[in-house]
Amino acid sequence: MSEPYTLVLLRHGNSDWNQKNLFTGWVDVRLSDQGVAEAKRAGKLLVDAGIDADVLYTSVLTRAIQTANLALEVADRAWIPVKRSWRLNERHYGALQGKDKAQTLAEYGQEQFMTWRRSFDVPPPPIDPTDEYSQANDPRYADIDGEIPATECLKDVIERMLPYWESDITGDLAAGKTVLVTAHGNSLRALVKHLDGISDDEISELNIPTGIPLVYKLDADFRPLGPGEYLDPDAAAAGAAAVAAQGKK
Amino acid sequence: MSEPYTLVLLRHGNSDWNQKNLFTGWVDVRLSDQGVAEAKRAGKLLVDAGIDADVLYTSVLTRAIQTANLALEVADRAWIPVKRSWRLNERHYGALQGKDKAQTLAEYGQEQFMTWRRSFDVPPPPIDPTDEYSQANDPRYADIDGEIPATECLKDVIERMLPYWESDITGDLAAGKTVLVTAHGNSLRALVKHLDGISDDEISELNIPTGIPLVYKLDADFRPLGPGEYLDPDAAAAGAAAVAAQGKK
Repeated sequence: MSEPYTLVLLRHGNSDWNQKNLFTGWVDVRLSDQGVAEAKRAGKLLVDAGIDADVLYTSVLTRAIQTANLALEVADRAWIPVKRSWRLNERHYGALQGKDKAQTLAEYGQEQFMTWRRSFDVPPPPIDPTDEYSQANDPRYADIDGEIPATECLKDVIERMLPYWESDITGDLAAGKTVLVTAHGNSLRALVKHLDGISDDEISELNIPTGIPLVYKLDADFRPLGPGEYLDPDAAAAGAAAVAAQGKK
Repeated sequence: MSEPYTLVLLRHGNSDWNQKNLFTGWVDVRLSDQGVAEAKRAGKLLVDAGIDADVLYTSVLTRAIQTANLALEVADRAWIPVKRSWRLNERHYGALQGKDKAQTLAEYGQEQFMTWRRSFDVPPPPIDPTDEYSQANDPRYADIDGEIPATECLKDVIERMLPYWESDITGDLAAGKTVLVTAHGNSLRALVKHLDGISDDEISELNIPTGIPLVYKLDADFRPLGPGEYLDPDAAAAGAAAVAAQGKK
């Protein structure tokens, strides 16, 4: 099959820690009941749109894997090949991992809080390797092709995500496969920034809602033929607004 | 890591069609609620035994994939690499797929029924490609490295399963990885026959229970150092007896 290629991005559904309003990052939390329902609905949206994923890419974080598993079961595509990479992980939130968002906002103020959340190139303070929410000794990173981060800004996420996009994901697209990438708010923001050519300044305004497939048609150079389209645009707009409001409750 | 290598075999939990007492084969049914519970318990048994799977092999049938997904979520190992192959599928049950087991027994008699269920080298009649339970047009087999079967006996299963054991699974074992194979009654009987050197006549007596991990320690030539051990021997014995009694209700 030739271009246009089809790329589907899916942010995992609501997690236990989304509900508790905690910074999560690389902490391996599970989907909440709401997140499970979102994942299944994402599968239904794919079926209704007639989009058959041929290959799945996920991070190595359980909430993204659960989302993919549930969506693909609903879509009768649980059997497609799966590739996982830490390079699709959520942004590492450094020392903020495990901290309450509202409390952090109250403690450090709006400016510092928004810098940590949305600055392109200023990471939060690094997490201590002995912290209970550090991944320094997590066996899933024992063999990664790089150093386990102790904190990341969005720029760092782009720098570790894009090589994987180029080395692996685009290869499946070029083979004519419909690719589903199930990942996280910031790894998907990094990819959308690349695809849509969003500037370092403007990316802070982009929020990706949970659980709603975002479909791109790409040309032979893997450039979008038009804007990415959410399979449920109304829910996507409401979801993006909710993400933007996080930490304010 | 060197030998002994660790191999864990897991038959998927009870499915919708197990409950309805229908021949399933390659028909892609889902786990029943009981099967979901069995899969989660299998994950718990792995945790309790301190067995950490490093890589997962599954068939391309949803009930085996669901079993693996659920067990690995419970075991906090959802992130391990996954490899799927049709070569680990259940035996293709030919024209019996979708037929009621008790009704088939009543219609054809005990001898013919047991021949179809347990003969080593006599397959059931082939399924018609236009039958609603044929997989002739199933997209998951569009690219398989072989012909889509229309029926299989256990000998056929061995002939398509063993090359995959040798080409792929043993490679991960040789690399020191703990391998989890989540598959089906007959593809696992085929593998156990090979491992334990069971004769063509004696294999008819072997029944593998659902949902209970079976652990082998293997030497450098991938031969068992002792009998495979079920992580819950009492439940395994009861489960094997239940399998043997199938079709008699």
